[in-house]
Amino acid sequence: MRALMMQRGKLWVDDLATPAPGPDELLVRSRGCGICGSDLHAVAHTDDFVRTSLEAGGAFKLTTHDPVVLGHEFCAEVVETGGSSGPTPGSLICSVPMLSRSSGAVPVGYHPQAPGGFAEYMLLSQSLVIPVPEGTPAHAAALTEPMAVGLHAVNKAELHGDEIALVIGCGPVGLAVITALRTRGAGPVIASDFSPGRRAVAQACDAHVVVDPNTEDPFKLEAVRSAVASGRRVVVFECVGVPGMIDQMFLACPQNARIVVVGVCIQTDHSRPLIAINKELNVQYVLGYNFDEFKQSLFDIADGKANVEHLISEVVSLDDAQDAFERLRQPDESAKILIDPSL
Amino acid sequence: MRALMMQRGKLWVDDLATPAPGPDELLVRSRGCGICGSDLHAVAHTDDFVRTSLEAGGAFKLTTHDPVVLGHEFCAEVVETGGSSGPTPGSLICSVPMLSRSSGAVPVGYHPQAPGGFAEYMLLSQSLVIPVPEGTPAHAAALTEPMAVGLHAVNKAELHGDEIALVIGCGPVGLAVITALRTRGAGPVIASDFSPGRRAVAQACDAHVVVDPNTEDPFKLEAVRSAVASGRRVVVFECVGVPGMIDQMFLACPQNARIVVVGVCIQTDHSRPLIAINKELNVQYVLGYNFDEFKQSLFDIADGKANVEHLISEVVSLDDAQDAFERLRQPDESAKILIDPSL
Repeated sequence: MRALMMQRGKLWVDDLATPAPGPDELLVRSRGCGICGSDLHAVAHTDDFVRTSLEAGGAFKLTTHDPVVLGHEFCAEVVETGGSSGPTPGSLICSVPMLSRSSGAVPVGYHPQAPGGFAEYMLLSQSLVIPVPEGTPAHAAALTEPMAVGLHAVNKAELHGDEIALVIGCGPVGLAVITALRTRGAGPVIASDFSPGRRAVAQACDAHVVVDPNTEDPFKLEAVRSAVASGRRVVVFECVGVPGMIDQMFLACPQNARIVVVGVCIQTDHSRPLIAINKELNVQYVLGYNFDEFKQSLFDIADGKANVEHLISEVVSLDDAQDAFERLRQPDESAKILIDPSL
Repeated sequence: MRALMMQRGKLWVDDLATPAPGPDELLVRSRGCGICGSDLHAVAHTDDFVRTSLEAGGAFKLTTHDPVVLGHEFCAEVVETGGSSGPTPGSLICSVPMLSRSSGAVPVGYHPQAPGGFAEYMLLSQSLVIPVPEGTPAHAAALTEPMAVGLHAVNKAELHGDEIALVIGCGPVGLAVITALRTRGAGPVIASDFSPGRRAVAQACDAHVVVDPNTEDPFKLEAVRSAVASGRRVVVFECVGVPGMIDQMFLACPQNARIVVVGVCIQTDHSRPLIAINKELNVQYVLGYNFDEFKQSLFDIADGKANVEHLISEVVSLDDAQDAFERLRQPDESAKILIDPSL
């Protein structure tokens, strides 16, 4: 099969043996797989990423220097089942990116034994796949995984219903948070990003207010000030994930705000606790999603509650994948780029 | 009146004019006032403290380089009322350390116009004083303010009742947290401190388990591990307040723990968000207390629910006050030292 290989930051298309499903496994054909910020980081800073993944002990992370096929945000079509039962060949499925094996969980898209969605074929565990509801396009269903991240962040925010939600950074993670907030009727949702392209997508995702932080401080909007004055709590979703963001949030937040840290800052960060203490801030760090949230995310997409069409900037073939990685390295106008190996 | 003066780190006993109460103010006689960590900091690092207080915009902090009389953890005896009504002369009262004036709030113990409890006499706002219930010793009632800090921290932890509470650092703040946890029936309460003297006081405050972190990691106790395994949440009260503590807590905490930051780290701090993200930790920064918590704290002391006798290491006169400040600068065995200007 054709596959986009990655090793120590190098990307190339190669021919790999098509994997053979073990018992309780499915052979599936990737029908679209998003490039995630973690994939970009794995390519740009492989050594750092491997070291940090090993240290942090997190799942879904690269812990090897061997060649791997990345891609963990996918929708796929069933080709062959290893067992007797299971979904019909030809049907679309999604799955949390993990192979459940007796030897332990293997992260799909980050392990030599579990090629991800940037190859023509992949293996999945039958117990973990979820059928895509009839009529849902494969490319929309491929957004299930990143949308689940947004849904989880919103769930962890433990909203009571009268909060003002600020989403700082409208990359794919911020857009997933906006979508989850709007799906759940939370609001007002105020989104902020330096990029005009991303602001346009945030608008299409139905954020109530979208601001350019170059010209307007989202924390100083009249809507935010008056809500704070009337006792409503501000919940900030930090979706940038670079050093200094948390300290910046400490400075900008009003009294009693909650900061949900969804952006992943890999480096050691600095902040001034005294500012957070004076405002009695709450910081909730979040990661990933659970199985129910993943399933819910697919259903929200399928029944149109979560409108993800705006989030797909481009769909490219394997041959154009390296260029797509390159484009995403720049401070960009792109939301999500999907690689579809069937193109 | 005799008063312990402080200016730019210098402490001396001087004669000051006894202040005259304005309307709705009381002249009171200090019957005991605790030396707080903030007082030590104000003396040791005046410039830094003034600068940070001005920047952070917090209440109850030193914002002047003029001479002041410190002391905001007091119990006092009514001498003279400025108005017609109010508590009887001779009766004991406590108050949040603030003068409520038409020109704005004036922090008692941090402002030239509001000498604190380290002088013979002080002024208080009649609307803010709370009578000390009959039979409560003045020195015990002087612990109302620091105990309110512990009570507030426990309230902000939003305990559901089945948490494991770890108190890291058994200085006055940690001991106040232990006392508030035990008063509210929370537990098990596991306390940790390098100092044998402070561990003894933590034991007297009825912590369920007290450990020396040199020989035993409180996070690795069998009680903590098994509680975590059975799904109970760990709530850690960080009561040390030096740089690096929060990162250390990130490393030590189990999944989903809440860290309540009660210790005040004045400096810029560093931490690795990735560790907190992987564990989905929650950090609640807290400060001070509200009026109801202050009142509750006094009532808990008065009715014996909060046993504060163990917390008073020494009571010294104004003449011995400078030595007491000096002793508290060392890595010490002392819990709370009270200065009683009536001695």
